[in-house]
Amino acid sequence: MLNSATPDVVAALSAALPSLRFIDDNAKYLEEPRGRYVGQGVVVAPADTAEVAAVVKFCSENALAVVPYAGGTGLVGGQIMEDGIVPIVLSMERMTQIRDVFPSENVLVCDAGCILADVQNAAAEVDRLFPLSLASEGSARIGGLLATNAGGLNVLRYGNARAQVLGLEVVTAQGEVLNGLTRLRKDNTGYDLRDLMIGSEGSLGIITAAALKLVPQPSAEGTAMMVVPSPIAALDLLSMAQSRIGEGISAFELIGRQGLEFLDEVGPDVVKPFETHPDWCVLIDLGLPAGLDPQAALENLFVEASEAGIVTDGVIAQSQQQRHDFWNIRESIPAANKRIGSVSSHDISVPLSKIADYIVEGRNNLANIADFRVNCFGHLGDGNLHFNVFPAKGKSRSDYEHLRGDVKKCVHDLVHKYNGSVSAEHGVGRLKVEDLERYSDPVKLQMMRAIKDALDPKGIMNPGAVLRAR
Amino acid sequence: MLNSATPDVVAALSAALPSLRFIDDNAKYLEEPRGRYVGQGVVVAPADTAEVAAVVKFCSENALAVVPYAGGTGLVGGQIMEDGIVPIVLSMERMTQIRDVFPSENVLVCDAGCILADVQNAAAEVDRLFPLSLASEGSARIGGLLATNAGGLNVLRYGNARAQVLGLEVVTAQGEVLNGLTRLRKDNTGYDLRDLMIGSEGSLGIITAAALKLVPQPSAEGTAMMVVPSPIAALDLLSMAQSRIGEGISAFELIGRQGLEFLDEVGPDVVKPFETHPDWCVLIDLGLPAGLDPQAALENLFVEASEAGIVTDGVIAQSQQQRHDFWNIRESIPAANKRIGSVSSHDISVPLSKIADYIVEGRNNLANIADFRVNCFGHLGDGNLHFNVFPAKGKSRSDYEHLRGDVKKCVHDLVHKYNGSVSAEHGVGRLKVEDLERYSDPVKLQMMRAIKDALDPKGIMNPGAVLRAR
Repeated sequence: MLNSATPDVVAALSAALPSLRFIDDNAKYLEEPRGRYVGQGVVVAPADTAEVAAVVKFCSENALAVVPYAGGTGLVGGQIMEDGIVPIVLSMERMTQIRDVFPSENVLVCDAGCILADVQNAAAEVDRLFPLSLASEGSARIGGLLATNAGGLNVLRYGNARAQVLGLEVVTAQGEVLNGLTRLRKDNTGYDLRDLMIGSEGSLGIITAAALKLVPQPSAEGTAMMVVPSPIAALDLLSMAQSRIGEGISAFELIGRQGLEFLDEVGPDVVKPFETHPDWCVLIDLGLPAGLDPQAALENLFVEASEAGIVTDGVIAQSQQQRHDFWNIRESIPAANKRIGSVSSHDISVPLSKIADYIVEGRNNLANIADFRVNCFGHLGDGNLHFNVFPAKGKSRSDYEHLRGDVKKCVHDLVHKYNGSVSAEHGVGRLKVEDLERYSDPVKLQMMRAIKDALDPKGIMNPGAVLRAR
Repeated sequence: MLNSATPDVVAALSAALPSLRFIDDNAKYLEEPRGRYVGQGVVVAPADTAEVAAVVKFCSENALAVVPYAGGTGLVGGQIMEDGIVPIVLSMERMTQIRDVFPSENVLVCDAGCILADVQNAAAEVDRLFPLSLASEGSARIGGLLATNAGGLNVLRYGNARAQVLGLEVVTAQGEVLNGLTRLRKDNTGYDLRDLMIGSEGSLGIITAAALKLVPQPSAEGTAMMVVPSPIAALDLLSMAQSRIGEGISAFELIGRQGLEFLDEVGPDVVKPFETHPDWCVLIDLGLPAGLDPQAALENLFVEASEAGIVTDGVIAQSQQQRHDFWNIRESIPAANKRIGSVSSHDISVPLSKIADYIVEGRNNLANIADFRVNCFGHLGDGNLHFNVFPAKGKSRSDYEHLRGDVKKCVHDLVHKYNGSVSAEHGVGRLKVEDLERYSDPVKLQMMRAIKDALDPKGIMNPGAVLRAR
C-alpha cells in the first residue's frame, strides 16, 4: 500500500533534502493538454540526477507514488494521477543541459529535461540532424519523448524515439542510478535495459539523461503534395517512391478530404494546394545526399506515377516558403480536429498491406453505429493512422456522448482483427490500460507484470500507468 | 536446484511427447567451433513452436536445464553447458520454414531455425535485401542471431540484428507462447519484450519465429580499398564519406598490415590489391539509389581525400569479381587468425573518437607484457574492432599460455577506461560472465538479475549464460 504525500510527509522530504525545489503553483502539472485528466500531487523539480535519485529513494522508503513529469504533452494521461493517494510529481524542467556534443561520433548527450527543439538546434549547430520531429517539439522534453517512445513525422526514415538512442541514465525505483549513458554503436553485454526503459512510461524508473544519435543533414530537401485516387494508390505510390528513391523519403503523410474541410470550417487558415479538395492526397518529403536533386526526383516520380494511374494531380514545392506551406496544412489538422471536437480519437497502426481495407471497413462499421465524420490522416508510410471520429455536421460531441465507448470499441476491435495496435505512437498511459488488457496477448501482460514487480516491487513508479495499480 | 536429464527423465519426456525427435549422434552439438567448450546434454529437435513449448514446460515442471541451440556458431560458449547437471539441448534445426513474405510491407516472417543465407535468398527473390550479413551466414540460424543480437558487416548502415526485427514469437521459461509476431512498424502498447529477448542469449526464453524487416535493394553497388596513413585518417575518411555520400555507405572496414601478413604466412591465398602491404587500409562498400553512380562517388571521394592527405593510395573495384576479391581479403582474415592461433581474441568497441587512441595505447600496453603480434581489424564505422593478440613470429600459443589472463585483462581494462564494451557483437555467453561482473555497472547487473529471476524463476533457461547460474 502506498501513502499519500501529506503535509507531514512533505515536511520530512523537505527536511531530508533542504535544497530540493518545490513548485507551489502546480495547476499546469495536474491537467493534461486536452483537459481529460485532472490530477493531484506535490510537485518538485530536482536540480540534477543525484537529486532525482534522492527524491525517489525517499519515496521508496516512505512508500510514496512518483509521477515523472516532462513536457506534459502526452495524450494518454501518463503524466497525471487522478485518483486515490497524492503522489510526488517529479518535474524534469530544471534539468535542461546539453551535456556534450560529439560531432565526429554523431552523438549528443543531454539531460532528460531538454526540450526537443533545443536538441534539434544543438544538432544543427554542428551541421547534424536530430531527426525526431513532432507537433509538440517546442515543449515536449527528451525524457518524456523517450519514456513514451514517441513517433512523429520522420519515423519512416529514421525510426521512432527508441531508434534515436544509444544510451540512457536512469534512476531506478530504489533511487539508484543506472549509468547506461554509453556512446557505443555496438555493445552486447547483457540485457537491453535501454529499450526496456524506453516506452515504459515512467513505470519502471525515471530517465534522467540520454546519449542520442545524430545523423548527417540531408544535402537537399524537397516536398510535394500529390493527389491519389485511393489509399491503395497511396500505398502503391509509396512503394514506387521507395524503389526509385530508396532511403531518401523522410516522410509520407496521408491527408483525407475531411481534414481539409475541417480546416475550411474552423481554421487555422492555410494555403490550399489544389482548387478543389481531393478525396485523398499525400505529402511527401525527401532529403537526399549530394548529387541528387529532390525536385527532379519528385518530378520523375510524378510522371511515372501519373502514367501508372496512381496519381492524378500534384504540386512540387518551389521554395522553402512553399515547403513550409505544405507542411503547415498537415500540421494544422490536429488543431482543427480539436476545434471540431472529436467523439473519439484513435492512434492506430495495422500492417501496411491492410491499411486500405482498414479504412474502408472502419468507416462502414462506424456508419452502422451512427452518422459520423471520420478524419483519417497521418503516417501512412509507418502504417500509423490517426483515425478520429467526429459528430456529423450540425451536431455536437454531446449528442454522441453515449456512443463514445461503442465508437472506440468499433475502431479498436477492427484494429485487433487486423493484428494492429491500438496505440501506435501515443503510448498506453492511463487512457489505454483497459485496451491493453483487452487486446494484448495474455502472456505479454504476465511478463510485463513480472518485470514491473521485479524492478519496482513497491509499485511506486507512476502507479496506474501502462499496468493497473495494485 | 536443477536436475540432470537422466535416462529416467529422458524416458519420461519421450513418453510425454511421443513425437519428439531425439538426436543420438550429438557430438557436434556439444562442442563450440573453436573447441574451447565441450559440453554434455540430451539433444532434442522439436518440429514446431508447440513442441518447443511442450519441451520447455516439461523441463520447467521437472527442473531441467534447457540450452537452446541454433547454428552453433557462437564464439562465447552460449550454446554449450560444460559442467554440472546434464541439460536438454533444444535444437532449432527442424524449424526452417519461411512462413510468409510481404514484399509490399518489406516484411519476412520465418521460423527461428532458418539459416541466415536462406533468409537473404528469400528476400532477394522478391527484390528486397535482408541486410544482416556475417561470416557464418551459411550456417548461423535466425534464432541464434537474434538471441545474441549479432552484428556483422552492415551494421553501420542498417544496425545490428535487433534493428532488423519487428516482432518475435517466444517460448517463455514456463513453456508458454508469447505471440509477438507483429508486422507493425509502430506499436507503443507496453514494455519492449522484443528487444529484451533479443540479446538475452536464451537465458529468458526461446525465440521460435521472427518478423524481419527487409529493405530495398540498392540500385548500384561499389567497393574500394583505400590506403590510409593511420586509424585517425581512416576516421577522417569515414567522416568525409558520410558527409558526401550520406546513408549510402554499407560497410567501412579497417584492415591492418598484420592481417595481410597473416594471409601471406598461412593463407588462404587472396588477391593483393597493393604492391606492398600498407600499414592500414579500409574497405568501403557503397549501395546507392538510382541516379547515383558508386564508381563516380568513390572516385570523387578518393580525389578529395587524397588532396586532404588522408588517403595515399586506392583501388576501386571495376567488376563484380573484383568486388568479391576485395571482400575475400577481409573475410579471409578470421581464417588466417585461426591458423596462426591467438593468445587471446577480443571483440571490443569504444566511442568512435577514441578508437585511434585505443589502438596506440592498447599496443603499447601489450608490449609491456611481452612481444606480441596484434591483428586489429574490423568494423571501424561502428567503433567495433577485433583486437586479437598473437604470438611473436617463431613462437607458439603455448609459450604465452601463462600470459593469457594478463593479455585479456590488459585489453579489457583499457576498453573500460574508454567507456567501451568488452563484447561489442559476440555477446556474453559463458566466456564473458566474469568480464560482465567486473566491468558492468552494478545497478545494471542488479536489474538484469531481477529480470532473470522474474521471467525464469526456476533458472532453467540456459543456466550460466549471461548471468552466473545459481
